[in-house]
Amino acid sequence: MAAAKLKIGVAGLGRMGKRHALNFFQSVPRADLVAVSTPDAQEREWAKEQLAPSGVAIYENYDDLLRHQGLEAVCVASATAVHADQAIAAINAGKHVLCEKPLATTPEVSQTVVDAAARRPELKVMCGFSRRFDESYRDAYAKVQAGLIGRPSVFRSQTCDMLDPSGFFVAYAQFSGGIFVDCSIHDIDLALWYFGEDGDSKVRSVSAVGITAVEPDLAKYNDRDNALGLVEFADGRIVNLYCSRMMAAGQEDTTEIIGTKGKLGVNTQPTANLVRIHEAGGIRQEVPQTYWDRFKKAFATEAVEFTDCCLNDTPVPVKLQTAVAAVRIGAALQESMISGRKIYFDGNGGRADEPRS
Amino acid sequence: MAAAKLKIGVAGLGRMGKRHALNFFQSVPRADLVAVSTPDAQEREWAKEQLAPSGVAIYENYDDLLRHQGLEAVCVASATAVHADQAIAAINAGKHVLCEKPLATTPEVSQTVVDAAARRPELKVMCGFSRRFDESYRDAYAKVQAGLIGRPSVFRSQTCDMLDPSGFFVAYAQFSGGIFVDCSIHDIDLALWYFGEDGDSKVRSVSAVGITAVEPDLAKYNDRDNALGLVEFADGRIVNLYCSRMMAAGQEDTTEIIGTKGKLGVNTQPTANLVRIHEAGGIRQEVPQTYWDRFKKAFATEAVEFTDCCLNDTPVPVKLQTAVAAVRIGAALQESMISGRKIYFDGNGGRADEPRS
Amino acid sequence: MAAAKLKIGVAGLGRMGKRHALNFFQSVPRADLVAVSTPDAQEREWAKEQLAPSGVAIYENYDDLLRHQGLEAVCVASATAVHADQAIAAINAGKHVLCEKPLATTPEVSQTVVDAAARRPELKVMCGFSRRFDESYRDAYAKVQAGLIGRPSVFRSQTCDMLDPSGFFVAYAQFSGGIFVDCSIHDIDLALWYFGEDGDSKVRSVSAVGITAVEPDLAKYNDRDNALGLVEFADGRIVNLYCSRMMAAGQEDTTEIIGTKGKLGVNTQPTANLVRIHEAGGIRQEVPQTYWDRFKKAFATEAVEFTDCCLNDTPVPVKLQTAVAAVRIGAALQESMISGRKIYFDGNGGRADEPRS
Amino acid sequence: MAAAKLKIGVAGLGRMGKRHALNFFQSVPRADLVAVSTPDAQEREWAKEQLAPSGVAIYENYDDLLRHQGLEAVCVASATAVHADQAIAAINAGKHVLCEKPLATTPEVSQTVVDAAARRPELKVMCGFSRRFDESYRDAYAKVQAGLIGRPSVFRSQTCDMLDPSGFFVAYAQFSGGIFVDCSIHDIDLALWYFGEDGDSKVRSVSAVGITAVEPDLAKYNDRDNALGLVEFADGRIVNLYCSRMMAAGQEDTTEIIGTKGKLGVNTQPTANLVRIHEAGGIRQEVPQTYWDRFKKAFATEAVEFTDCCLNDTPVPVKLQTAVAAVRIGAALQESMISGRKIYFDGNGGRADEPRS
Repeated sequence: MAAAKLKIGVAGLGRMGKRHALNFFQSVPRADLVAVSTPDAQEREWAKEQLAPSGVAIYENYDDLLRHQGLEAVCVASATAVHADQAIAAINAGKHVLCEKPLATTPEVSQTVVDAAARRPELKVMCGFSRRFDESYRDAYAKVQAGLIGRPSVFRSQTCDMLDPSGFFVAYAQFSGGIFVDCSIHDIDLALWYFGEDGDSKVRSVSAVGITAVEPDLAKYNDRDNALGLVEFADGRIVNLYCSRMMAAGQEDTTEIIGTKGKLGVNTQPTANLVRIHEAGGIRQEVPQTYWDRFKKAFATEAVEFTDCCLNDTPVPVKLQTAVAAVRIGAALQESMISGRKIYFDGNGGRADEPRS
Repeated sequence: MAAAKLKIGVAGLGRMGKRHALNFFQSVPRADLVAVSTPDAQEREWAKEQLAPSGVAIYENYDDLLRHQGLEAVCVASATAVHADQAIAAINAGKHVLCEKPLATTPEVSQTVVDAAARRPELKVMCGFSRRFDESYRDAYAKVQAGLIGRPSVFRSQTCDMLDPSGFFVAYAQFSGGIFVDCSIHDIDLALWYFGEDGDSKVRSVSAVGITAVEPDLAKYNDRDNALGLVEFADGRIVNLYCSRMMAAGQEDTTEIIGTKGKLGVNTQPTANLVRIHEAGGIRQEVPQTYWDRFKKAFATEAVEFTDCCLNDTPVPVKLQTAVAAVRIGAALQESMISGRKIYFDGNGGRADEPRS
Repeated sequence: MAAAKLKIGVAGLGRMGKRHALNFFQSVPRADLVAVSTPDAQEREWAKEQLAPSGVAIYENYDDLLRHQGLEAVCVASATAVHADQAIAAINAGKHVLCEKPLATTPEVSQTVVDAAARRPELKVMCGFSRRFDESYRDAYAKVQAGLIGRPSVFRSQTCDMLDPSGFFVAYAQFSGGIFVDCSIHDIDLALWYFGEDGDSKVRSVSAVGITAVEPDLAKYNDRDNALGLVEFADGRIVNLYCSRMMAAGQEDTTEIIGTKGKLGVNTQPTANLVRIHEAGGIRQEVPQTYWDRFKKAFATEAVEFTDCCLNDTPVPVKLQTAVAAVRIGAALQESMISGRKIYFDGNGGRADEPRS
Repeated sequence: MAAAKLKIGVAGLGRMGKRHALNFFQSVPRADLVAVSTPDAQEREWAKEQLAPSGVAIYENYDDLLRHQGLEAVCVASATAVHADQAIAAINAGKHVLCEKPLATTPEVSQTVVDAAARRPELKVMCGFSRRFDESYRDAYAKVQAGLIGRPSVFRSQTCDMLDPSGFFVAYAQFSGGIFVDCSIHDIDLALWYFGEDGDSKVRSVSAVGITAVEPDLAKYNDRDNALGLVEFADGRIVNLYCSRMMAAGQEDTTEIIGTKGKLGVNTQPTANLVRIHEAGGIRQEVPQTYWDRFKKAFATEAVEFTDCCLNDTPVPVKLQTAVAAVRIGAALQESMISGRKIYFDGNGGRADEPRS
């Protein structure tokens, strides 16, 4: 007697979509990948070779995916611009939803997903903040919860990609919401998590600066390739973000959580594995080349746990409201970086002209 | 249309047996755990709770397991003393076999498994040297193969367990073959692998020394809690082994492969994950507490790949003859440690009285 | 025939003054410590025991020190409030000067030292930015100069002291100029050095935030115990500073210089020495407990090289104007942190109301 | 009133001799380098340029050095073959002696130095085991003494030089006593120190193996370029040595002291300084290129402390008898490596034919 499995479909088969599809296909024992959809003919060709032989249905239109017989859940892994629409359509069709980050590039649109989900409380709707499922970040979180570092007060975190000499990310910048929304969103989510602000952040101010050190063309899309940000919370905590698309060694995503009694570092000396190479020039450790290399195990855990939540009817581990708060902060940092001005908040989610005393 | 799955049974549900059973149960999509066997009533009770609800059959007798309808493969995870008998019985019954290390505590008995397997070349028979499936050891192997360090010439490796204050390992020493056969066998297998001696080692001499630093009672079973060994190969390569049951920090299994042009270190600064704890006293990194903590992912890969070999009819990645060579070396080191004498080989697998010139 | 030695006096025998005095006394073969001065009776008592037996003169008044027969150079290591006055008096008296950082807590007063020095070009006048004499920072600088990381574009650096539970730094905050002027001044100097802006920085804006996580009383002196700052340079480079008085493990002064082709980290995993302690709980490395522990060798090198410059009539390795630029940036960061406002510069050293486009 | 200084001469101005001479010349405030001697004309030329201008006398003959007016101490840094003779001549002439390691390549000749010193107890005679003056080794020693790791029981240590492609060490092997006497002597001395066996070691057995992986010509001088050794002590402690002349990255001298309650590692991940280079290929740390690079600070401390002992009439920190014990062990390891046989001791310093029970 086989246990029940979650019938899931994946929308979008771009870089991340393929990975999500393969994850549900191979690495989630309790999930049954039954269908995928993508408007891109080449991506459908890939699916025909990789997935169709095992009976996975392939659709051009997302609406057809939603109508797939017996479908219970959808993983939205399409372009950011349609995340919110597709998530809301799935919710309205009564499907559980795992939506890639960010929900949208503005907090207002992101909020519409939360509102839709609120109308269907029986559904599981989660934004895929993959880092929350990484075992090192979880170990650090458990240590914070256990009081090991006292009150976490300063949070410093970076998402730094290896330089892609193809310049792919320039074109991508038009739609990504900018480097703070695309990259630092992960660090912002972590800050909200570690600071216990899930779903309810009280930001006082943000400020940011950025440069185009290697890709001047980013400027025309109001983006930068290296940026630094500061976020102040009303309860006396501060956040420092760094995002970059210029790393030479690989993906360097590091985090420090500094408390009144100690500090935790996560991946502060990035490493791909336990091998050290002693050679002319010294001792070398390799670094994961991509975000996926660093977090592929976390993505698998995310898929497994989302599936478990749907099947067991338990709450998802990431509050959906947090995904809105993270976009609000990320978008404000992006605005501050471009305008050159510090942005103040009034404590009720609105803007203020002046610092609050 | 679901793909074919390998129907597998697990023999023995002790510490390692439970882990193997759960691995095949949960983490190997192409395997179907259909049955388990153990003479121990408590272990069967565990299986009734954990496995029976999903339809896994539970047997007291190993022979009944072998007769289970449709069984195609067996994982032998019982006490070392019965490894060889159970593996041979399974082979004779026409089952693929994954046998926990060592095949036996003597090379002669180990060879009987190889001989049995040779009579059934259509079966997959593999000794489970888990470290070969660890991604860091594999990365190091690929780098050696790529010529990164020139000719690997000196191999230094250790298997050092955290001190178990219960003294469990004293009683265990009666049956384990001793610390070199129980612990260093992994390092010996790695040396044979990295030196390209798989299945065909040409050892010139071994010598070893040991002490009982924390557990004097080990002496009565001709065992030690800390031991060092040297192995000389006929082609001018040397091996240095360290095994211990006395570590304070955790499982410290480290390896260095030293070649004419460079050196590779694997896990030379043991670490459980990417978290660093800054606290009074300094910066601390946690260490895996057990062999399982360190290698659980490798065990899962081992199970997945063994399953693939059976289903796809491809060669297993570890030559069975190597498992005999490793026991021969380990047993000779144990003998040298106890007798205090260096042991010489004649180049044809036999002993010699003198060093060969 | 003994070589000529530099006759030097040390003003101030507080914590740092004692160290400077002992350095010149013991570790600078070409220097002759001939006199010290301090208004503090206890400090003079210390000098009577430690220095007087070897013939070092002890003065209560700084002016008497300056009049000491044959004195050629002065090390100003007194309270920050009198740095500038004492340095100028020494210059006017025709003495070479090594002045502890900062020259003063405002750029205006700092500039008066530069002006005084400009009138006596034959004298060596240097602000003691000790980190420039550390061998790791120097190695990193040489690598930057050699082009190893392309154009240095992002500079991240921190000066983080171990928590002093005595609260000494609260009283100290009244006179220190604040945490950015007292601590981050080192990081700012390094940024100017690595960015090639020595003596001539073109800052566009600064912004900062801070909190009192462990010492609320700091607020009454307009200071904080943890602060983060951003500095934008006109030529498209950015700086990120972190300063703290709350570290649990020890002095954590780390720096990252990020260029278009690579990155250099200095002390990113702080360590006191090469010892690693394997114990229950994991593997631990100790961290220097104080700034002095971390940089004592650099202070000795600073003293040796300053002495050599005086005796050999060669230029000092740190431009004096840089010390003013560093105070200007540090004081602006402190102001921004307290006011909550971002501060803009007009490109000519003056303030602006708006970001420059 | 200047303090008294120790008038010292240096014998031998080869690689190490030059360093010792410069050390006493520049870095030892209480020493006065008054004379040097060397039979080598080129080395005397070097001394004429570097030392003579400051009044250091230069001799061709060692006997003339000993007759230098007012000479109080000698640093013997000549070829190993004349260490003992020169040390004894200095002792007989009433000079304090700092002798480079080893005293000689045989224990018998080494003992003659101890005997000569015993007849002149008022003189300070020390063998320069530089590692004892390294701050990390000292920190580890203090921790052992404080009981941090329980009873030190297993000692693993290596002296591994970077490959010198000139093959210099082949010719050198004729006179060095072999790799165990030349390189591992340091590790043996450390083992005796940490195990509390200073001057009085009770070895049960030694065994060793070696290969010529990169320099086959070494075989003709009965030497090897990579060797491993085991040493057993009568009180249940064991030592594992590794020495090599083949490292690619640099000087890799690492040590582990393993006790019943913990373990200390010294330099287990060798590093030249605190800089980390992030570049294509990963993160790299440089390694000291030579023994001198790694230990130059220890050599300076050694010179300072030896000078202090002579001037203050305090005991030298390294027992002279230990230097004999270290040579005895090193020479036996070398013999075992070449003969292929394990060597047993009878507990009274003599050899035995059989292992003692």
